[in-house]
Amino acid sequence: MTAAAAADRPEIPAARFGERLASASALAVDRGVDGVLVGVGADLRYLTGYRALPLERLTMLVVRPLGAPVLVAPRLEALPARSCPAAASGALEVMTWSETDDPIALVVRLVGGAHRLAVSDRLWAMFVLRLQTALSGVAFSLASPILQELRIVKDADEVALLRLAAGAADRAMEGILRGRLVGRTEADVSREIGERLVAEGHETVEFAIVGSGPNSASPHHDPGERVIRAGEPVLFDIGGTLAGYSSDITRMAWITGGNEQAGPDADYRRLYDVLQGAQAAAAAAARPGIAAERVDAIARERIAAAGHGDHFIHRIGHGIGLEGHEEPYLVAGNALPLREGMAFSVEPGIYLEGRYGARIEDIVVCGSDGPRVLNEVPRGLRLVGG
Amino acid sequence: MTAAAAADRPEIPAARFGERLASASALAVDRGVDGVLVGVGADLRYLTGYRALPLERLTMLVVRPLGAPVLVAPRLEALPARSCPAAASGALEVMTWSETDDPIALVVRLVGGAHRLAVSDRLWAMFVLRLQTALSGVAFSLASPILQELRIVKDADEVALLRLAAGAADRAMEGILRGRLVGRTEADVSREIGERLVAEGHETVEFAIVGSGPNSASPHHDPGERVIRAGEPVLFDIGGTLAGYSSDITRMAWITGGNEQAGPDADYRRLYDVLQGAQAAAAAAARPGIAAERVDAIARERIAAAGHGDHFIHRIGHGIGLEGHEEPYLVAGNALPLREGMAFSVEPGIYLEGRYGARIEDIVVCGSDGPRVLNEVPRGLRLVGG
Repeated sequence: MTAAAAADRPEIPAARFGERLASASALAVDRGVDGVLVGVGADLRYLTGYRALPLERLTMLVVRPLGAPVLVAPRLEALPARSCPAAASGALEVMTWSETDDPIALVVRLVGGAHRLAVSDRLWAMFVLRLQTALSGVAFSLASPILQELRIVKDADEVALLRLAAGAADRAMEGILRGRLVGRTEADVSREIGERLVAEGHETVEFAIVGSGPNSASPHHDPGERVIRAGEPVLFDIGGTLAGYSSDITRMAWITGGNEQAGPDADYRRLYDVLQGAQAAAAAAARPGIAAERVDAIARERIAAAGHGDHFIHRIGHGIGLEGHEEPYLVAGNALPLREGMAFSVEPGIYLEGRYGARIEDIVVCGSDGPRVLNEVPRGLRLVGG
Repeated sequence: MTAAAAADRPEIPAARFGERLASASALAVDRGVDGVLVGVGADLRYLTGYRALPLERLTMLVVRPLGAPVLVAPRLEALPARSCPAAASGALEVMTWSETDDPIALVVRLVGGAHRLAVSDRLWAMFVLRLQTALSGVAFSLASPILQELRIVKDADEVALLRLAAGAADRAMEGILRGRLVGRTEADVSREIGERLVAEGHETVEFAIVGSGPNSASPHHDPGERVIRAGEPVLFDIGGTLAGYSSDITRMAWITGGNEQAGPDADYRRLYDVLQGAQAAAAAAARPGIAAERVDAIARERIAAAGHGDHFIHRIGHGIGLEGHEEPYLVAGNALPLREGMAFSVEPGIYLEGRYGARIEDIVVCGSDGPRVLNEVPRGLRLVGG
């Protein structure tokens, strides 16, 4: 990708981080929480725009209902911390600690008098337990009930970034499906997928699953030294982040090696048709008001009716945004009604252990009147000759 | 890298994971802990060889002094979990949970009757707090006092992997120092570093810091759109993982653009000479018995004597292995005596805020009679013409 293309990217306006911080503070008051402690990761990036390194030196955003938000950061990261959009625009104060200081003591001073504190869901135990020891009378809870209320609905700028990430992943997927596969190891093809995702503008590659033959029946297969052959399916599930926002797409190929006799057998054709119909029906159902679990059930009922109910061994989807998996989860038991701006995967699978399997996945945004499907790679079973 | 090169890599023998699990269990008994709960990450990989995806579905190794170790994994990851070296060699039982099960309840059953449990340092708060709620009478502590006792000393196979990772990072660094830099943005050069690390065999790129001009005074600068010019220094601090083991090297270039007049000024030459001498003296001091903090002090005394004491704003180094930063930390206050097989960075820096800075970093293994320096890129200030 050229620098010019990067410069054309939509951006989250700096003022929005101040709005998000204010919303988080207001929600904390609503929930009776005296402070929200946010470690490095997607929550921090959402609230401040700061991309901190995930290291053992404490970086922590302290959101206080009764005071301005403060970002605690190691002194050697003072400049990037002060340059993040929220700090640069004046919505966030930065306090640094030096190498032999105790950053936990600094956080404790900032939340003095608190009775209830929420911590970000992915804060490390090394910080959670130290905070609990230093604040022994305080009740700790997770910050997700507060922060997911904000993050679960994407605004137009976020949807634009998700669309960019999906487009880049689509091009990487097309490149792989059009290239040579026969005779290569899964690991080798996986490496090429990583290179293609980066070449298309991704800054991280989170996964590049290549599951050939019987490995296509293992949903999260770790690509290895197995060589791809004619006469078998290959599952590709790939994704990473672009400008912080996640991509995630799954497509299936059947390797013919150019030999008509090595095409998919009748069982696989039938299985694939059922799956494709189920995926399309579930994606089409995404609209405001429908329960998250209902999207799962729509696909599951079709797959079960075809005799594959026991072979669809995972939920149909997960939310997506600054994290690859986040709320809303589309799973039995989650009655949450979908809202406009929610973004999630729709990815049913059918897996015959030891034999083969299939999954089809798109990222879908819930629009005002129905789904907006972000991925555009054709969903039919791709026959690959070479 | 070719597939053949990957096949030649040293590997941790499968039997070693069973030994490590047994050692962890014995150490837990010593420390009076009734169980060690290990989430996804370096601790899990060290003990089992399992590279699980860091996702919201719970994967947890349960090490019990009075029972065999058990790996709790989501059903859709059953095959990779059962294929990990520890499980495949019979040293580890795998128990899976289905999409609508409660995995915390499964862990609770496995540690029934426990009074004291240790959790891995990077376990997410979402799991820590749920475990604390479900096991309300149990005292929780961090697993690092147990697991770092094992991980802090590297065996010969681990040193061989660290050496491979260092060699790959060295080649990426040399490629960058020999290429064109003038007129390119930091972000563009950073992307090339990532591509070179992957091309040299890294499976992940953890950081590719490019700090030009005044940005070289910000130790953890986030590479941006600043254009590299003649007449200024550039700091490169790059690293990732190769076969799970981390690389980390820092070198400095001064951009002359082919113009003799644009070479380093007298202040920078002096600063750099002090820094290089301090780095060499500290690295040379690494041997069994010396206190970790003493290595830091050796460099700090030299840098302070030259008037730059206030400009060396971070510790001299961190341990390295399956994590980029781990024990031992070479920092004031850490009197831990070094032992043969400990591996760490030696990376003093001098930073003149707003003007420029410098850092030199090598990975060093403590040998029986002195240091083994793994990086081989020359440490002098590299003058770059183009």
